[in-house]
Amino acid sequence: MTTALVLDLLGTFAFALNGALTAVRAAQLDIVGVVTLGMITALGGGILRDVLLGALPPATFSDWRYLVTAAVGGLIAFALSGRLDRLARPIAVFDALGLSLFAVTGATKAMALGAGVGQSVLLGTITAVGGGTLRDVLVRRVPSVLSSELYAIPALVGAAVVVVAARLGDVGALWALVGAGACLTIRLLGMGFRLNAPRPPGGTTEP
Amino acid sequence: MTTALVLDLLGTFAFALNGALTAVRAAQLDIVGVVTLGMITALGGGILRDVLLGALPPATFSDWRYLVTAAVGGLIAFALSGRLDRLARPIAVFDALGLSLFAVTGATKAMALGAGVGQSVLLGTITAVGGGTLRDVLVRRVPSVLSSELYAIPALVGAAVVVVAARLGDVGALWALVGAGACLTIRLLGMGFRLNAPRPPGGTTEP
Amino acid sequence: MTTALVLDLLGTFAFALNGALTAVRAAQLDIVGVVTLGMITALGGGILRDVLLGALPPATFSDWRYLVTAAVGGLIAFALSGRLDRLARPIAVFDALGLSLFAVTGATKAMALGAGVGQSVLLGTITAVGGGTLRDVLVRRVPSVLSSELYAIPALVGAAVVVVAARLGDVGALWALVGAGACLTIRLLGMGFRLNAPRPPGGTTEP
Repeated sequence: MTTALVLDLLGTFAFALNGALTAVRAAQLDIVGVVTLGMITALGGGILRDVLLGALPPATFSDWRYLVTAAVGGLIAFALSGRLDRLARPIAVFDALGLSLFAVTGATKAMALGAGVGQSVLLGTITAVGGGTLRDVLVRRVPSVLSSELYAIPALVGAAVVVVAARLGDVGALWALVGAGACLTIRLLGMGFRLNAPRPPGGTTEP
Repeated sequence: MTTALVLDLLGTFAFALNGALTAVRAAQLDIVGVVTLGMITALGGGILRDVLLGALPPATFSDWRYLVTAAVGGLIAFALSGRLDRLARPIAVFDALGLSLFAVTGATKAMALGAGVGQSVLLGTITAVGGGTLRDVLVRRVPSVLSSELYAIPALVGAAVVVVAARLGDVGALWALVGAGACLTIRLLGMGFRLNAPRPPGGTTEP
Repeated sequence: MTTALVLDLLGTFAFALNGALTAVRAAQLDIVGVVTLGMITALGGGILRDVLLGALPPATFSDWRYLVTAAVGGLIAFALSGRLDRLARPIAVFDALGLSLFAVTGATKAMALGAGVGQSVLLGTITAVGGGTLRDVLVRRVPSVLSSELYAIPALVGAAVVVVAARLGDVGALWALVGAGACLTIRLLGMGFRLNAPRPPGGTTEP
């Protein structure tokens, strides 16, 4: 297995745990709903990326390892979900992990399929935020990518790191880890200090 | 016309009736909204399946019969929708019918395009639940596939019946009807007795 | 640049302004959310069209001018968004402009890629209403295409004008402007007089 595949499956697993725990906490779903939301969260970003790249059928459907990883993640989350009041922190951390890993692997796959520099950064970001956006729409929340403390920006940074490194001739695992680490750090700092990007001049009152 | 096409058009018609009646009942839409929601409900699952199979453009756009069937179903529902309090039962029954037919035809098409056993069962299920999920998102409900009494499970069973039968060498109309019948029976029993899949250990309080 | 490209980029710009201002007004988002919603509104319809045509990757990802136009529109809207109470009118006008331009360019592209008469009209309409539908789902509103005063009908008319003209052998810029003008006129009249398509017989009470 290549480094990219390992990181991709790790991201899939993290998002499956996140989506499934979100289903338990936010919508009190049964086991089918929990595993389904976990799988959609885990596989949605990669499917969006592959549709936009025209790389169909998506890797998640031609490669069984993604489906199994996502399903197992959802089932583990279902089994372990004990007290709802303890779920908030793991949900947020698994989301940040998946975001960081997918930003890097999404951008890497886009480059491998011949996308340009800008498109690769954008597709890495879409891979990272896509699954969580589908998750939020399905449980009727305004998606994190639109509303939350620094969500798309760390993904953009993580994707940009691997794209710039690849342009400079370095496609090793080191820069993938640097990109994912940078994304994770910014995201966790953003959550910890409740940082937000600038708001519009007219938007002074909170909704 | 092949058996698969007949069943597929029947499923399209049932889902168009269901989606259009849902538009009348849940969102009080005008005729354009009613027919639009009927068509999205009827065609959405097959479009999702074809995108995931990379079979583009989707059959619903290269074959006029699907578009016409969906539009006619929506118009009929608009014309017949009399009293709102009588719509709950037909909405549920048409949804169960569409679910059963699409589980079988979706899995059959996936196999015909070379998908593996597991993927075919999954794609049959996605075909069955996809249109209703789009419908629920558009009228702002938590999708049935996440929340409802036994919704994805009967579709999985129906799809699995035809996939297993095909693997054993039998691709006739009989097993398609057995699969659709099994799905329909489980779904109607689930609704009648309000059965649900197991809920997570922490999810003791209802939302 | 061809006429079609100019009209397409104008439509992209109008929808980017509309989506971004909607983000400022309806959901009080930060700059990332504002630009993201602007870009999704501007690019969503064309992406849906290209997926349904099987023309992948979508033009918006292989042609940088769309991405830049959408991003610039979103940033301009962010910078100019002064007082929320003044935004309602420009939001509606930019939406009507994008709707009219995309109905025409979407139908033209569908014909250029070999779609039939009916499919081209439908794909023009989907291009026109697709981005706004994604926008409404993301900020949790019932989509305009389902609920609003004459929204899909003007798009259908605008698309039909260019498709009929092309069938009669005339593919010049004149009929594109006539189609877009007809769509814009009907839409603005519909908004001004709060016209609606007929409602179902049972739907007498408002939600």
